[in-house]
Amino acid sequence: MKKIEKLCEDAREASRQLADMPAADKNHALREIAAALERRSDEILRENRDDIRDGKKAKLSSAIMDRLLFDEDRIADMARALRKIAALPDPVGEVVDGWRLPNGLEIRKVRVPFGVIAVIYEARPNVTVDAAGLGLKTGNAVILRGGSASLHSIRMLTEVINGALIDAGLPSKAVQLVESRDRAPLKQLLNMKEYVDLVIPRGGEALKEFLLKNSTIPVIYAAGGNCHVYVDAGADIDMAVEIAVNAKVQRPGVCNAAETLLVHRQIAPDYLPRVVKELLDRKVKLYACPRTLEIVGGGTSGVKEATDEHFATEFLDLEMAVRVVDDIEAAIDHIARFGTGHSEAIVTNDLASSRRFTAVVDAACVYVNASTRFTDGGEFGMGAEIGISTQKLHARGPLGLRELTSVKYVVSGDGQVRN
Amino acid sequence: MKKIEKLCEDAREASRQLADMPAADKNHALREIAAALERRSDEILRENRDDIRDGKKAKLSSAIMDRLLFDEDRIADMARALRKIAALPDPVGEVVDGWRLPNGLEIRKVRVPFGVIAVIYEARPNVTVDAAGLGLKTGNAVILRGGSASLHSIRMLTEVINGALIDAGLPSKAVQLVESRDRAPLKQLLNMKEYVDLVIPRGGEALKEFLLKNSTIPVIYAAGGNCHVYVDAGADIDMAVEIAVNAKVQRPGVCNAAETLLVHRQIAPDYLPRVVKELLDRKVKLYACPRTLEIVGGGTSGVKEATDEHFATEFLDLEMAVRVVDDIEAAIDHIARFGTGHSEAIVTNDLASSRRFTAVVDAACVYVNASTRFTDGGEFGMGAEIGISTQKLHARGPLGLRELTSVKYVVSGDGQVRN
Repeated sequence: MKKIEKLCEDAREASRQLADMPAADKNHALREIAAALERRSDEILRENRDDIRDGKKAKLSSAIMDRLLFDEDRIADMARALRKIAALPDPVGEVVDGWRLPNGLEIRKVRVPFGVIAVIYEARPNVTVDAAGLGLKTGNAVILRGGSASLHSIRMLTEVINGALIDAGLPSKAVQLVESRDRAPLKQLLNMKEYVDLVIPRGGEALKEFLLKNSTIPVIYAAGGNCHVYVDAGADIDMAVEIAVNAKVQRPGVCNAAETLLVHRQIAPDYLPRVVKELLDRKVKLYACPRTLEIVGGGTSGVKEATDEHFATEFLDLEMAVRVVDDIEAAIDHIARFGTGHSEAIVTNDLASSRRFTAVVDAACVYVNASTRFTDGGEFGMGAEIGISTQKLHARGPLGLRELTSVKYVVSGDGQVRN
Repeated sequence: MKKIEKLCEDAREASRQLADMPAADKNHALREIAAALERRSDEILRENRDDIRDGKKAKLSSAIMDRLLFDEDRIADMARALRKIAALPDPVGEVVDGWRLPNGLEIRKVRVPFGVIAVIYEARPNVTVDAAGLGLKTGNAVILRGGSASLHSIRMLTEVINGALIDAGLPSKAVQLVESRDRAPLKQLLNMKEYVDLVIPRGGEALKEFLLKNSTIPVIYAAGGNCHVYVDAGADIDMAVEIAVNAKVQRPGVCNAAETLLVHRQIAPDYLPRVVKELLDRKVKLYACPRTLEIVGGGTSGVKEATDEHFATEFLDLEMAVRVVDDIEAAIDHIARFGTGHSEAIVTNDLASSRRFTAVVDAACVYVNASTRFTDGGEFGMGAEIGISTQKLHARGPLGLRELTSVKYVVSGDGQVRN
């Protein structure tokens, strides 16, 4: 307990130095870290080999092993990402709003760092560098708690970062690691609300449930994405085929990929045979409602009957549910019932449908005539991203640099008192 | 459990109707509620008398009894507040940001309601009307859970609100009450994260601790205000006296009142005798550091020696701690140690001090040459306020209408897919 508390206190202390630090100094430090990663890549790769060896022993899945593995290219990627963050504008100090009161008081609402951010992540060791970079850029001290499978790599990366911070004249406690293979220190960390302002998880549902139960510090949650493409009555069929296919197959394993295709009954007879063929050609398994089956034929290979279970599932794979709906309201109701508030798309040529869909569908990103796959900090032009928020408090959608800041009111007067 | 879940489901359903509702309809409903409160004041006062009778039996403190008591004036105040909210601009639909991507996608970041907000409060029954008004204005369905001491009044107020909602053609489930004198239903409510988007508490530390432990729904916390006035070396002494006195005595029982006065050692010999006299004249009890005692005289009536306990206390009364500090850095350190991040003021004529203090002091509102008492939605010109946030996530400082909303990205294209 003492150890974690000391670590948090040190982070708070470092955050006070970072709060007022000019962007030039922070950017210099980021470039120093990038250079140190490249310079010390041998050490990083050596430690990484220990994780790989342990992972093989523990028989981790090939997907996890792939995330664990570093090579020169991946290290170069991390360095490049840091230099990119360094080149972005500093959100700290941005005047978000400002006005003058009748009594002459001048109010400015100014962007400031949170203070201390804890990032809890799982297998990907490169999050270490990402989180440190985004945290430092936004003037926050960062406490890292990574997955135990990558502990050797993470420890080495933190050492490299700390060395570079010292070289750049920044407090080394600005980036600290909670080293542990069990969850007791994590539980302690999640109760340090005196020192830690925000927790950002990067992991699955199990981690989320753990934080919901154990964190007294505010958390920004990123739920999964059960995303839909709804094809409206008068949609352009070519466009609707292209968008549905792209939203499903361009990268099926990510949260902004579509999981269910909803089709207006009027367009279904023309649209469904074409889109089903395209999806089957790309090895997508389909779960179809009875009306869909009627149109495409019940015995089609690769097409099974859909259940509510399918509509509720985030497949994250080459699988998709398909349902014919009576009208846009039925599509909206389906999305309200099964959606997770991530990304939802309508393909339509009707202005009223477009207005209705964007007004009523409750999601972080609502698309008209575009693929759900664009929900991404990079694609949105934010330059960097630490995740995608599906909660409504503080930040919704891609979390860029601004979303890692809070605000403060600075009020200037010449002796005003209240009557 | 079933009952609370049904209530939350109904709120979610009502929120979908509110989400897209034009401001004119919402404002009409607010005016209907105001009229209904006035028209049915006899019924409200009758129910209120039952609470007063029960409160007397339970021997509640006179402060609580005063908060409980309604009369025609207080009902008129509630109606006036609703009409004021109706006259404010609707934050929903505000385009917060917007840009076009290189691929032609048009992105708009639009203000939207949260959905369902639960407001948990204690003795003040008028919060019922306030919370309902602010919630409806911002397109949110509201679930109310008020203090048991005012249950008769709250129940009647909710009935009046529901009747007016129906008259105005809005769903009556837009405002619902969790009726109960114990905390089991509240615990259930705090786990309905599928239906409820946000919890706003209005109460003391005990309620806060309860929510920290029991809520899986995001909460906006308002901590107490241990606020400071720091008088810098070259401050205008008249101004510094006036600000310190105003910050302490103008209304000592509220969170933005000052609790500790910090004085630079160079100005202390001139400033302290004057400010101490003014404070003692106004019946303020003082807790002074040794250096202060040396200047004002140890035996002065009304002045005791200060302990760290005093520096850590939010007195909310005519009591104040006084401490001489070596310089601005010592003042900043004191505030970092004892402050609660609410409102902090510096009185100075020095530009560097002003810059340093506003940059480094970590609080919702930082004042230069003004009283801390201005931290208030009304004073800030926000028109309405549901509380003052001292957390850094989502909203910091006065919570106005905008702070009761989330955002959504609306992305429009003409067939864009991701490569």
